[in-house]
Amino acid sequence: MMPGNELVDVTTQEGRSALAEQYRQALLSDVIPFWLRNGWDREQGGYFTALDRDGTVIDTDKSIWFQGRGVWTFATLYNTVEKNPEWLDAARSGVEFLRRHGGGPGGKLYFTVTRDGRPLRMRRYVYSEAFAAIGNAAYARASGDARAADDAVSFFAAYLSHSFDAGRMPPKVDALTRPMMSIGPLMIGIATAQELRVNLGDVVAKGQTCTAWIDWAIERIERLFVKPEYEAVMEVVGPSGEIIDHFDGRQLNPGHALEAAWFIMHEGKLRSDRRLIRLGLTILDWMWKRGWDEEFGGIFYFRDLRGLPVQEYWHDMKFWWPHCEAVIATLLAWTLTGDEKYARWHRQVHDWSFAHFPDPEFGEWYGYLHRDGRVSTRLKGNMWKGPFHLPRMLWYCWRLLEESK
Amino acid sequence: MMPGNELVDVTTQEGRSALAEQYRQALLSDVIPFWLRNGWDREQGGYFTALDRDGTVIDTDKSIWFQGRGVWTFATLYNTVEKNPEWLDAARSGVEFLRRHGGGPGGKLYFTVTRDGRPLRMRRYVYSEAFAAIGNAAYARASGDARAADDAVSFFAAYLSHSFDAGRMPPKVDALTRPMMSIGPLMIGIATAQELRVNLGDVVAKGQTCTAWIDWAIERIERLFVKPEYEAVMEVVGPSGEIIDHFDGRQLNPGHALEAAWFIMHEGKLRSDRRLIRLGLTILDWMWKRGWDEEFGGIFYFRDLRGLPVQEYWHDMKFWWPHCEAVIATLLAWTLTGDEKYARWHRQVHDWSFAHFPDPEFGEWYGYLHRDGRVSTRLKGNMWKGPFHLPRMLWYCWRLLEESK
Repeated sequence: MMPGNELVDVTTQEGRSALAEQYRQALLSDVIPFWLRNGWDREQGGYFTALDRDGTVIDTDKSIWFQGRGVWTFATLYNTVEKNPEWLDAARSGVEFLRRHGGGPGGKLYFTVTRDGRPLRMRRYVYSEAFAAIGNAAYARASGDARAADDAVSFFAAYLSHSFDAGRMPPKVDALTRPMMSIGPLMIGIATAQELRVNLGDVVAKGQTCTAWIDWAIERIERLFVKPEYEAVMEVVGPSGEIIDHFDGRQLNPGHALEAAWFIMHEGKLRSDRRLIRLGLTILDWMWKRGWDEEFGGIFYFRDLRGLPVQEYWHDMKFWWPHCEAVIATLLAWTLTGDEKYARWHRQVHDWSFAHFPDPEFGEWYGYLHRDGRVSTRLKGNMWKGPFHLPRMLWYCWRLLEESK
Repeated sequence: MMPGNELVDVTTQEGRSALAEQYRQALLSDVIPFWLRNGWDREQGGYFTALDRDGTVIDTDKSIWFQGRGVWTFATLYNTVEKNPEWLDAARSGVEFLRRHGGGPGGKLYFTVTRDGRPLRMRRYVYSEAFAAIGNAAYARASGDARAADDAVSFFAAYLSHSFDAGRMPPKVDALTRPMMSIGPLMIGIATAQELRVNLGDVVAKGQTCTAWIDWAIERIERLFVKPEYEAVMEVVGPSGEIIDHFDGRQLNPGHALEAAWFIMHEGKLRSDRRLIRLGLTILDWMWKRGWDEEFGGIFYFRDLRGLPVQEYWHDMKFWWPHCEAVIATLLAWTLTGDEKYARWHRQVHDWSFAHFPDPEFGEWYGYLHRDGRVSTRLKGNMWKGPFHLPRMLWYCWRLLEESK
């Protein structure tokens, strides 16, 4: 049931070495080969992500999110692990597909296009731009391609403008009746700025440096979304941080919050800023309690602030990505504090994840489990799952453990 | 586990009487009182639908779909069961709320509004109009209100225009790259026309009678969506009925198809048209096989045409409404044919539904079960579940059995 379970003792040097090796092996011998073999469209460029259990492509449409994210993954491995030319070629393939087919009228990026790049869906929001920014930033460093560096900054500026300039993005809910803000654009803003900075230096986008954007986003999250009175981090609030006591407003997303927690801890670590680390730990502490399923294990997808029923149908399913974020957040918290609680939580979520998500026969992880851990669909990818969260987690945790050996 | 199970023998007169009584009791002693007690907003008009297990309102926002659908339910009971003044008052409350608060700029109806009727969401599509049409038609008959009769026709005309006039509704997917049509607007068109006709006579909307619209919609469904080579009814096809071999195009919705099946059988019954009845039976036969879960029982939400994985997360959950449609379709098929197969299918889906969905403690049905029948959420209603599918099924089946006693 739990392969490698006996090795996950992060509090010993031996345990850390074994765990680092487990992450490295999964990344380089399983997950990355799976995506290069099955997901890379060597004929028409870019990546398929809609893969059946054995890697068969079952929908040739391409996610623009995952073109940017895939580029980031392959270029980051090239930049940080080894100069493997196949990884650089794969990254270039995604960059070129994005350049040829990513942008719609006015330059805003699509959400999905056909295999050969004809437009399918344009959406209101701009996560395609954030992921194109991090992909281009990592690829610029890998290749020295000057256009990629410029594009990374332009995509980030477009992301910031659409996300934060008042009135730029059409609201889903009438803004006069019920003005709402989501944490998503802020937390993705932090991660995007961090990736631009590590690959391009502390460049200026839309009038300020990446570091200044990170400060701005963290300040807003802390002031508006972090609620000590509830010990919760909200997904959505009113313009002054008001709790919106309706389905959408009460709906907590523990995976999202744990992701924000490690972005903020990572920033605190880079700056040796204990206040930021403390903020990230607080978010982790609260949202672990909100999100961990004491009955079946694993991280719930949605929870209600007041324990009321949630409207979204998949509220109690176990998705792969919140588990990836929780593995990173707990391991990073342990390395920053040495607090045994975080070693315990890390072990819990690591063991549950590695017991339930991997497919030993065909590789990669399943993405979607029922609450009790049974596989809900044999899909290995779709328009929302591709070469990103899992390889990012394996890569980040492997390197973090190498550092702390 | 299965209360009343021993009574469900629809092939005997005694079984039909007992079953009719079970449906009548559930309708008049459980479901309708639950919604009148908990869902009717006697202060500000119209209906809440976001109810916790015990009927507590947990979101005061109002679904415009369910204002029209609730009016239809209460007014239809008044028209066909008894002249209960509370039902007429409840229907009037919904009609008046719709008149005051339903329409946005240009008259198109909202999807959701606040408790006091301020706008929240406007969507591309026009199901709010279809449900406002059937509500107003039933209310016009119940009350003699001439404006309601006019409004019913106007809403139906708006529905037809937005749904079927080329270029009127902005497409979700780029129409040059991948033109797509859904079965939903056609099948809801049939049911809307049937309800206008039964309550107002065969009125003209957008240039032709309700009966002519029904013929038009059934012809399109049969020609474009019904696929003998796959023994399947598609949810989505290309403009000439092409199979679209991508996630969305392959995705079958058995509950939807079973609903279309009984709309068509009902039309065939009214007209004594054996060809229409045969079409409805064919859809039922194929989609029962596609939808029935041989392992756990119940009707799957989505299936893939080619047995591939489906992208939607709740694909294998058991929702209350496909079960309501399946109970009607199988019972109607049995009464029309006397074929023992349909009695058996009816018993299967009736027993499974009544064993898993009802809440004997607080009344009404749960809406959302896991594949194995365990309750996923204790919600009794939300923006998608309210006083419609379940009372419609109980009312239709009760009356059908009374007819065939």
